Amino acid sequence: MKRSERLVVMTHYLLDHPRELVSLPFFSETYQAAKSSISEDLGIINQMFQKESIGYLQTVSGAAGGVKYIPQFSKEYSESFVNQLCNRLEDPERLLPGGYLFMSDLLGEPQTVRNIGRLFASAFADKEVDVVMTVATKGIPLAYAVASYLNVPVVIARRDPKVTEGSTVSINYVSGSTRKIQTMVLTKRSLQEKSRVLIIDDFMKAGGTITGMKNLLEEFNAITAGIGVLAEAEDEEEERVVHDYLSLVQIINVDDRNKQIKVTNGNLLDKIT
Amino acid sequence: MKRSERLVVMTHYLLDHPRELVSLPFFSETYQAAKSSISEDLGIINQMFQKESIGYLQTVSGAAGGVKYIPQFSKEYSESFVNQLCNRLEDPERLLPGGYLFMSDLLGEPQTVRNIGRLFASAFADKEVDVVMTVATKGIPLAYAVASYLNVPVVIARRDPKVTEGSTVSINYVSGSTRKIQTMVLTKRSLQEKSRVLIIDDFMKAGGTITGMKNLLEEFNAITAGIGVLAEAEDEEEERVVHDYLSLVQIINVDDRNKQIKVTNGNLLDKIT
Repeated sequence: MKRSERLVVMTHYLLDHPRELVSLPFFSETYQAAKSSISEDLGIINQMFQKESIGYLQTVSGAAGGVKYIPQFSKEYSESFVNQLCNRLEDPERLLPGGYLFMSDLLGEPQTVRNIGRLFASAFADKEVDVVMTVATKGIPLAYAVASYLNVPVVIARRDPKVTEGSTVSINYVSGSTRKIQTMVLTKRSLQEKSRVLIIDDFMKAGGTITGMKNLLEEFNAITAGIGVLAEAEDEEEERVVHDYLSLVQIINVDDRNKQIKVTNGNLLDKIT
Repeated sequence: MKRSERLVVMTHYLLDHPRELVSLPFFSETYQAAKSSISEDLGIINQMFQKESIGYLQTVSGAAGGVKYIPQFSKEYSESFVNQLCNRLEDPERLLPGGYLFMSDLLGEPQTVRNIGRLFASAFADKEVDVVMTVATKGIPLAYAVASYLNVPVVIARRDPKVTEGSTVSINYVSGSTRKIQTMVLTKRSLQEKSRVLIIDDFMKAGGTITGMKNLLEEFNAITAGIGVLAEAEDEEEERVVHDYLSLVQIINVDDRNKQIKVTNGNLLDKIT
């Protein structure tokens, strides 16, 4: 295989296997090329990935060494993406009764969801994460997008147990905004003890649902490795119960009467260098 | 930019924009190269994409022409993937009370879900699809995976309306297996009239839920462009009410007493050439 041909297939392979250690001998055998040629190929790929804000190749040295493709957005790209998202969310057409914002269209765009996933993966790149967790329904696409770039599985907590899930562990929690007692369940066999779990959700107000997920993780003797939410909103009535989280955007003000929404970037951008 | 460098970034660009028409002048300007060089690059990429079962580049000629990356699995790869899936599903550990099969672990693996998505996208490649639809909860990751490769948005029907969704259209349908009357809702603004909709779900027995989605689409004056389910199961009591669908696997027999499960490939493989 010629270098030009190898670069196409190696680029695809790396993009398709994020954060997976790939050894030089693997590439060398698969594409029938000397290790020195493979090294040069990887150098070109690494340079281009960085230039185009795709991520970078991490070199792991030693006998069991190789390279890992780490997906990452540049600061510049991240800022422009988040700004664009804020602008789209400020559209007064999104206003729903009760001061809620319609976001399902954005969350229905696979490209937007993938970008959000890559941003969270960039921000949590330094955390050790075994699994991504969310609660049904709206957080699901985001959780998969993040998990896809972190190359870890997803587990989904539900508000109601289902027969097709087997035995579950359930907890009760207080929804921060409505003060109602709610239930959350997770299938027993879906999560191993000591797993390091990244919690992802679409929306956080006081943080009741996130706290519910944290409590559920405690039942499994699992560890909360991080918390990421797409949008956080201020809650006047309640003190926020969750503090150590990253948000992509912050809904500052929803003025139902004057049809005005103010959305600004969350604290996630500070984590991207 | 040198050819070797261009091949890396063009490969990434195409993979990131499936089924999107990209003009030669776009590549030529973005990467500062003659159109003839870009043409040669695309030739190499096309050849390698086909060789590695990634898909192919479709050439659209004329003034508004260019290339489109069409994700596609080869017959060989598709067969081996489906066989592997069948083997994993036949594990007696998956048996749940009532003859249900535990599948959440498979559906929690982003790589597996992406592969399933690419298989459906390959099988429905010749259909005109504007949007992918599913019903919460388990079909959601599959719907996003398919939509991602078809480069179209996702809409999610729910079994209960939510305040954060705005006004909805609701229908009642009869669940084929349990004979219970159920409700399904879809947000009014999520789907345009005349949309061509690909329905994706994780599981089908008699087909009541799928029929519910079809009825919901009729309320929106939308068109069912295709139906894809991950697993179909035989239903002894009921006649199947849905016929024109593609399934990845078929659960032939679940023997609760002897702890045996028989899973074979569905009719989707026949569509892959």
